[in-house]
Amino acid sequence: MVRYKAVISYDGTLFAGFQRQTKERSVQEELEKTLERLNSGRPVKVHGAGRTDSGVHAYGQVIHFDLSQVRDEEKLRFGLDTQSPGDIDVVSVQQVSDDFHARYNPHSKTYEFLVDTGRPKNPMMRAYATHFPYAVDLGTMQEAMADLVGTHDFTGFTASGSSVQNKVRTITEAKVERDVKTGFLVFTFSGNGFLYKQVRNMVGTLLKIGNARMPVSQIKTILETKDRSLAGPTAAGNGLYLKEITYE
Amino acid sequence: MVRYKAVISYDGTLFAGFQRQTKERSVQEELEKTLERLNSGRPVKVHGAGRTDSGVHAYGQVIHFDLSQVRDEEKLRFGLDTQSPGDIDVVSVQQVSDDFHARYNPHSKTYEFLVDTGRPKNPMMRAYATHFPYAVDLGTMQEAMADLVGTHDFTGFTASGSSVQNKVRTITEAKVERDVKTGFLVFTFSGNGFLYKQVRNMVGTLLKIGNARMPVSQIKTILETKDRSLAGPTAAGNGLYLKEITYE
Repeated sequence: MVRYKAVISYDGTLFAGFQRQTKERSVQEELEKTLERLNSGRPVKVHGAGRTDSGVHAYGQVIHFDLSQVRDEEKLRFGLDTQSPGDIDVVSVQQVSDDFHARYNPHSKTYEFLVDTGRPKNPMMRAYATHFPYAVDLGTMQEAMADLVGTHDFTGFTASGSSVQNKVRTITEAKVERDVKTGFLVFTFSGNGFLYKQVRNMVGTLLKIGNARMPVSQIKTILETKDRSLAGPTAAGNGLYLKEITYE
Repeated sequence: MVRYKAVISYDGTLFAGFQRQTKERSVQEELEKTLERLNSGRPVKVHGAGRTDSGVHAYGQVIHFDLSQVRDEEKLRFGLDTQSPGDIDVVSVQQVSDDFHARYNPHSKTYEFLVDTGRPKNPMMRAYATHFPYAVDLGTMQEAMADLVGTHDFTGFTASGSSVQNKVRTITEAKVERDVKTGFLVFTFSGNGFLYKQVRNMVGTLLKIGNARMPVSQIKTILETKDRSLAGPTAAGNGLYLKEITYE
């Protein structure tokens, strides 16, 4: 068997998420269907670096899979790209050693979150940014975000039903800027891993802080108390992008 | 009767175009349905500054309509915006004099056309830019575009079935740039009016010139000969945006 790593991008709008589901359409299932065709009808299992939820987009999701024989990398990329549905694109394919694992090899992930603060919203972006047509103070959010950077127990920012035991993660970068061309807020988070709905809960809280409906110290309070009820609402998935994954 | 002018934006993806059709969904029909509700059930006719084709988007389409009584402009904008489908947004509403006509009052239109030259394309933009993954020379296209500026008979750039008699139009600006952030080509055309499919035919021709499959003199040849068969293919409507309309 030969192992391949691929970087893929997808429009999450019409997917129930990355991970294969019994009934709903998933990125994993579409890629596995294409790979099975390319692998002479033999099933191929796709492993992703991480799951993305329904409606969440990716520019740099990483997957790996095994094929029965060596392929030309660019021909394989082209076949996988053109034979997959239009909302999935294959950016690159690379042969890797047998012990590479997209999920378990240590890596850093970067997420971006787009917020359209316009009134009215940009209709072209309604599936690609979350609409928040209220005043937000950039400086206040930037000040609050500094508290997110570092190694913390992020229990207060994850969904309550999560089965993951260890909720300690490290965020290496957290910033927010206003895109001068679109006027959108662009949140960026990098770290060694993120809990279920963590980014969306952090953004929901930061927007409340930026709108002066929570104090700037709220981030610190949530990290200390681990109390989900003190955080803001979960921001909608359509503004979230898995931007890049870097392996050590 | 009181006349109102409104600036609207829409995502053209799920519309058969601006103009009302017998069977298919149109922007005009959706706006008329909303206005009828806001006008106590009395039908309201919407007049657009121009038609846009299936899949073509707008940031600054202008419409006018008459209501039986005076309304607060912002309340009317808000009602029209929130009660219309999510792919239509109402940017502004303004009471105007009875003789204002969105289509017949002299005006200048600006269109933008986005081309994704990436390989692979950006999946998030598949309905919002035309994909042309080939080498294009910006300088050659810019040189050719200079020939479009001015007053010309654009017969060679319109669809053959058009019923419009006078095909002389004036283009005041024609330029192409590469967006540094997205890497997309951004074509901009301003003028006092454009023929059916004219912008898409000009872009299709310019991409062939940029890709060195037509000489840089081809624009001049098409204008002189008025021969549609010498022009390039009609670029797909999903890259086209009605950007702005300015009345004299």
